Amino acid sequence: MTATIALLTDFGLRDTYVGMLKAVIAGIAPEARVLDLSHLVPAQDVREGAFDLFVSHGYFPAGTVFCCVVDPGVGSSRRGVALRLRRDGSGPYTFVGPDNGLFTAVLDGAEVEAAASLDDPAYRLPVVSTTFHGRDVFAPAAAHVARGVAVEALGAGVDPATLVRLPWDRPRRIAGGWEADLIHHDQFGNLISNLALTDLQPDLTRWQVEIDGFEIGPIRRAFADVPVGRPLAYLGSSGLLEIAVRDGRASDVLSAHEGSVIVVRERT
Amino acid sequence: MTATIALLTDFGLRDTYVGMLKAVIAGIAPEARVLDLSHLVPAQDVREGAFDLFVSHGYFPAGTVFCCVVDPGVGSSRRGVALRLRRDGSGPYTFVGPDNGLFTAVLDGAEVEAAASLDDPAYRLPVVSTTFHGRDVFAPAAAHVARGVAVEALGAGVDPATLVRLPWDRPRRIAGGWEADLIHHDQFGNLISNLALTDLQPDLTRWQVEIDGFEIGPIRRAFADVPVGRPLAYLGSSGLLEIAVRDGRASDVLSAHEGSVIVVRERT
Amino acid sequence: MTATIALLTDFGLRDTYVGMLKAVIAGIAPEARVLDLSHLVPAQDVREGAFDLFVSHGYFPAGTVFCCVVDPGVGSSRRGVALRLRRDGSGPYTFVGPDNGLFTAVLDGAEVEAAASLDDPAYRLPVVSTTFHGRDVFAPAAAHVARGVAVEALGAGVDPATLVRLPWDRPRRIAGGWEADLIHHDQFGNLISNLALTDLQPDLTRWQVEIDGFEIGPIRRAFADVPVGRPLAYLGSSGLLEIAVRDGRASDVLSAHEGSVIVVRERT
Repeated sequence: MTATIALLTDFGLRDTYVGMLKAVIAGIAPEARVLDLSHLVPAQDVREGAFDLFVSHGYFPAGTVFCCVVDPGVGSSRRGVALRLRRDGSGPYTFVGPDNGLFTAVLDGAEVEAAASLDDPAYRLPVVSTTFHGRDVFAPAAAHVARGVAVEALGAGVDPATLVRLPWDRPRRIAGGWEADLIHHDQFGNLISNLALTDLQPDLTRWQVEIDGFEIGPIRRAFADVPVGRPLAYLGSSGLLEIAVRDGRASDVLSAHEGSVIVVRERT
Repeated sequence: MTATIALLTDFGLRDTYVGMLKAVIAGIAPEARVLDLSHLVPAQDVREGAFDLFVSHGYFPAGTVFCCVVDPGVGSSRRGVALRLRRDGSGPYTFVGPDNGLFTAVLDGAEVEAAASLDDPAYRLPVVSTTFHGRDVFAPAAAHVARGVAVEALGAGVDPATLVRLPWDRPRRIAGGWEADLIHHDQFGNLISNLALTDLQPDLTRWQVEIDGFEIGPIRRAFADVPVGRPLAYLGSSGLLEIAVRDGRASDVLSAHEGSVIVVRERT
Repeated sequence: MTATIALLTDFGLRDTYVGMLKAVIAGIAPEARVLDLSHLVPAQDVREGAFDLFVSHGYFPAGTVFCCVVDPGVGSSRRGVALRLRRDGSGPYTFVGPDNGLFTAVLDGAEVEAAASLDDPAYRLPVVSTTFHGRDVFAPAAAHVARGVAVEALGAGVDPATLVRLPWDRPRRIAGGWEADLIHHDQFGNLISNLALTDLQPDLTRWQVEIDGFEIGPIRRAFADVPVGRPLAYLGSSGLLEIAVRDGRASDVLSAHEGSVIVVRERT
């Protein structure tokens, strides 16, 4: 069975930085299947990277190693870490990268089976730069794990309670419903909230959605349920409540953005 | 022999949507070779996606499965389909995606060996969202075909005559030549028409090209045949007549664009 | 052992040109591992492509084949070539592409083991267009080399002394130090010079850096060594002296750009 390594970075696609990660991996774990999750995380935006890992990781095969580099603190004293964890009965997955909050969302509710700091020089490149740990530390560690090296062998054990975590908004219970937050807008301009299907079950039809005081209406099943140009709320493909505009960009049309507040109330 | 799966979407590269397609494929068909055709098809532009498949598919190995997601009607009643076809003696190739016209150009003149709608839940993810059939329906179907599942097994048979087709302009015969249409402009600003080498053979030197009434001149062999900054007509790498500006962008320099009319006449 | 093929082009990611390269490779060398180095080299900017190859190639496994297409002269009389070389004890690596200076920097100081022009039709596609040698000539040649065909078999031998080389600035010795040149700015806005670690050793702390007359200060170990918003000089991940602005874009903040002059003097 060939292991999968998924790459998430803010390196962009112009330079050869991503290519160098893959070159290092090809040298250490030539049989690994290497997939790009995204390299266009906004520069140094750890929160966006955390969101990306959260919504996508569960679709990967058990055993996948995520090599994640959104790393504004490279060269400072922040740790490099590897974490092997299980969530909601899926996994195990291994996450390799800086201990700067990038793993906040995947750690939430996870069982951490192993956590280590990336100390052992045997699992780094021979020369480690101060500015490119993605190539010199994280990619080698991910490749060694893909080849079968245990997370525990990569360096000193880490107490999961000491891992850096970002503040991560959760929906609040209010009278007759929920107050939630927009946490992402995607390529299509759709606005994604932190309110999950599990919060809204079993009867999705009983809710009424508003955003920043603007009435969106009930939760719809599909874009085609509203006329072209109209906004709608629906359960997105990540299992989170989303706001879109049919054949338009909600992030442009509505005066809403990351941090805007969604209110979901029972219909009266 | 490892099957190849080629991906064409309008998902963009910022989000993790493409990564999730690849994750699903890695879980079902770990040995498949997955190639990106493009993920920057303009959002919901089915016609552009149809053009992309048309010009590129013939260079892929026989047996390649194309997983294609330009899908403005996701969640509506449009069908998902898989088509196995041969064109011009090449293939077979399998195309998986929405039945919305995306396969118009590859179907043109093809022998359709099999066509099915993607009904069977055994070849979908266990939970199918209303907004992301790429991940939940098309990628699983493509991966199963790459593993050897027959198109015919994916669901109910489809009569090829019922497949949705876009209007697709063809060159018109006029006195002494052809009237043709610009159907694409590429990354370099080159303008690509629907007039094919086969329409212009055997003697390429006898033609004179004009676009929107502007004289371009004879068909050239290479960019270097005109001075820097000058437009030229030439037979493009897809076997279609193209207009370029040497060391410039024809789409910016000329007042021409998709839909502009090219006239090709015998030289007098 | 599966050979690696690394792709560097200026094709962009919108069109299917890169996909066609990979399609051709998949047909000839289905077992090859194909990695993207970058496809966003600025259009026809041979010098940028040369820089990209220079900084990245050494991280690839020995035996890697680089298929490189930045080719403004396609269709003219410029040669297509394949070069097998070793540098600094690493390699061998094979570079395939146009003989237009793209290999200037990797050739510098290299031992050229073999060089051939891409003449033999057996290692091209059956039909060769005048505008897309990447697909029709370079990708097939790279794939055949990855499968074990010797560079020498691809066509007539080439005298390495006849290969096209761009002027390539080197740092100049001045009283008490060096005068060097900015040769690239990266995705993060960092400015990269042609002055190498080896020029500055053994004592990095003795140098003072200025750029276009503006004082930058000593060579730092990491971004965190200066306050946010301040510029710093440091040894970049490619072993070259770089200028950055902490949490900013040096290429925007400083009035410096490719061609700007850096002066490095001993501290007084």
